[in-house]
Amino acid sequence: MISAAVDADRLWQTIMDMAEIGATSDGGSCRLALSPEDATARALLLTWCEPLGLRFEQDAIGNMFLRREGTNAAAGAIAFGSHLDTVPTGGRFDGTFGVLAALEVIRALHEVGLQTKASLELVNWTNEEGSRFKPAMMGSRVFAHDMELGAALATTDDSGVSVARALRDSGEAGPLVPSPRGWSYWLEGHIEQGPVLETAGVDIGVVVGTVHARYFQLVITGEPSHAGATTMDRRRDSLAAAAEVIMAVEQVGLAAEINGRSSASWIQNLPNARGNVSNSTRLHCDVRHEDAERTKAMEADLRRAIASIAARRCVRIDVDPYAVFDPVTFDPTLCALLRSKAQARQFSTRDMIAAAGHDSVLVAALCPSAMLFVPSADGISHNPKEYSTKEQLARGAQVLLDVVLALAGLPDD
Amino acid sequence: MISAAVDADRLWQTIMDMAEIGATSDGGSCRLALSPEDATARALLLTWCEPLGLRFEQDAIGNMFLRREGTNAAAGAIAFGSHLDTVPTGGRFDGTFGVLAALEVIRALHEVGLQTKASLELVNWTNEEGSRFKPAMMGSRVFAHDMELGAALATTDDSGVSVARALRDSGEAGPLVPSPRGWSYWLEGHIEQGPVLETAGVDIGVVVGTVHARYFQLVITGEPSHAGATTMDRRRDSLAAAAEVIMAVEQVGLAAEINGRSSASWIQNLPNARGNVSNSTRLHCDVRHEDAERTKAMEADLRRAIASIAARRCVRIDVDPYAVFDPVTFDPTLCALLRSKAQARQFSTRDMIAAAGHDSVLVAALCPSAMLFVPSADGISHNPKEYSTKEQLARGAQVLLDVVLALAGLPDD
Repeated sequence: MISAAVDADRLWQTIMDMAEIGATSDGGSCRLALSPEDATARALLLTWCEPLGLRFEQDAIGNMFLRREGTNAAAGAIAFGSHLDTVPTGGRFDGTFGVLAALEVIRALHEVGLQTKASLELVNWTNEEGSRFKPAMMGSRVFAHDMELGAALATTDDSGVSVARALRDSGEAGPLVPSPRGWSYWLEGHIEQGPVLETAGVDIGVVVGTVHARYFQLVITGEPSHAGATTMDRRRDSLAAAAEVIMAVEQVGLAAEINGRSSASWIQNLPNARGNVSNSTRLHCDVRHEDAERTKAMEADLRRAIASIAARRCVRIDVDPYAVFDPVTFDPTLCALLRSKAQARQFSTRDMIAAAGHDSVLVAALCPSAMLFVPSADGISHNPKEYSTKEQLARGAQVLLDVVLALAGLPDD
Repeated sequence: MISAAVDADRLWQTIMDMAEIGATSDGGSCRLALSPEDATARALLLTWCEPLGLRFEQDAIGNMFLRREGTNAAAGAIAFGSHLDTVPTGGRFDGTFGVLAALEVIRALHEVGLQTKASLELVNWTNEEGSRFKPAMMGSRVFAHDMELGAALATTDDSGVSVARALRDSGEAGPLVPSPRGWSYWLEGHIEQGPVLETAGVDIGVVVGTVHARYFQLVITGEPSHAGATTMDRRRDSLAAAAEVIMAVEQVGLAAEINGRSSASWIQNLPNARGNVSNSTRLHCDVRHEDAERTKAMEADLRRAIASIAARRCVRIDVDPYAVFDPVTFDPTLCALLRSKAQARQFSTRDMIAAAGHDSVLVAALCPSAMLFVPSADGISHNPKEYSTKEQLARGAQVLLDVVLALAGLPDD
């Protein structure tokens, strides 16, 4: 059986080169979706793909598809990739590893002149992080018809710039209508973003499914007043109410340890003026759990706490549960293939549930899909300290390559 | 004894005309310091002063002085006024009443052709509110040499615009070096911003002093991480820590009821990205009490709570106590004069302690000073619902006029 090997040094250097784009002084990267940095990163990816003879296509939400033709044009492609955008305090590996491991797979095949039967598609999804434009996984969501293109384009960032405008400004609005492309399989490599693999000393996480997650936007409405002249008992302080909600969010997560978690991660306060009791505070929060019933229970607990806070403080709290992520079970056959290909290389594996959102969750509705994780040092991610070793990354890319080859097949198989 | 009478309708209409500048849809006004709206308000004041023959001077921090010459040029002037800037959710009366009551005093004198012995000066202080540029009472602070002009000019708003730039853009940087002007007395009329006068059915509050207040800027530093992948026990969430601090601030105020109060009114969170555990959160908070010892005890309680939160959550919390307002006792003779002039008009009075900051606190260090309050409906202020009746406002302006006349004297006295 023919095989090919990834080049650990080349993969590492490629990731380091990409990290230079939007590099932050503390060793991380900041490439918000459709920002100038994101556009530069995408252009660099195209530069790297140029000598590989890939066909580039892009859809109207900016998703990038780089196709390597197979000998059997009729077969559905094997697609793989991730995202190049980051959160504001991003590290060098989240998302980027998945895209550049995919690039390394194609480079390795190109190097030894192997053409697969099925075509291959390297994918870079738009706005996976959702930091600038919500919701997260916007590109794959629109692609999978889980969100209307028009609604996505109309979404604005905190400074009022729409996705449509950002696509235009960054030059990333492609001509394709976002739509499934008849893939036969989807694979995504990613860093774990948690401590499980490192703690257990395991090389490869086989992601068998994802947690249930529910995202909420809260609007808390109180009454503005003078912070000096208004006695405590006469206040309807939306910021104080928000603080109590944030504590309640945290309590719900603590009570659901260790497979559950919850967060309040975004706040906007008005008038946000020193000396003024606040009257309007917005919060983003989420609850997550491996078990769907437990997630619903967490939401119910949170809603009860919110109702009690609103009543006691005479403020109004509107709860908009704007995104629900049902747990996804990845394709068992594909997971088995990941396990066996890893083990054939003497890499240890462990089945895992992904607690973060990933584009694969959306693609899983379209074709058999799976993910693999590589270890994250100290479980840290969304942080400049995010780190995986060259060897850990190379092992992940090698398993990806072996699985892609097995799925795509070779003409002489 | 000669006297003069204010025109209640004219005063009311003048206040309503001023409220049109920066008018908000809910009946309030938004004229942030040195904004275009503030500049328009200042220009309107000058238009109104034009027929009164006042001499206009302005200092480098934008404070406006409108002088009506007396017969005795050697005597120190009687100065009075307040501020035209508002908070973002401003009403129509806070500050504005003090400036336009001063205008009404001069209009009433002008109407009957009374020239006082001492000169009169109507004052509009720059940036009393401190909503856009901190600290509050910036204009009177610089004037009273409580803050360096250079430091004030270098202060920036949340979008990075400096006071120097805003003064230039608004055309409000005058040629005078901010400095005391040899006044013999200072008076300020203001709405109460609390419910005491209305509840007690009293016409005029004689402000005998102010509370002790301490303002803090807190910087909470945690660690960014992924909100989905990071278990609750591994987080160093600066926003959750901030929420606990906000609750602690509130507790300190509740424990000091009813003469003490405390507030967290401004928050800035980073990266403020959905799905990201926050790593840097800034808060503005303050504690106030009539009793200086109690204020210090409130601060000590708050600092203890902050230290405990920081230790327990493994975050760093830097506390910058950037402004301290020692309690001011206003001039007893002037307070007695306010009381007697009010009572001579059959207006009921009550001695009060001001819980909000006012320019008079700064001026009190320069010359005998006092303030009078008029009732606020339901104690509401910094709110579009802020309201005082035409009669309540006119009574305040009348007492101001009577006291000004008594202090300035008439040539035939």
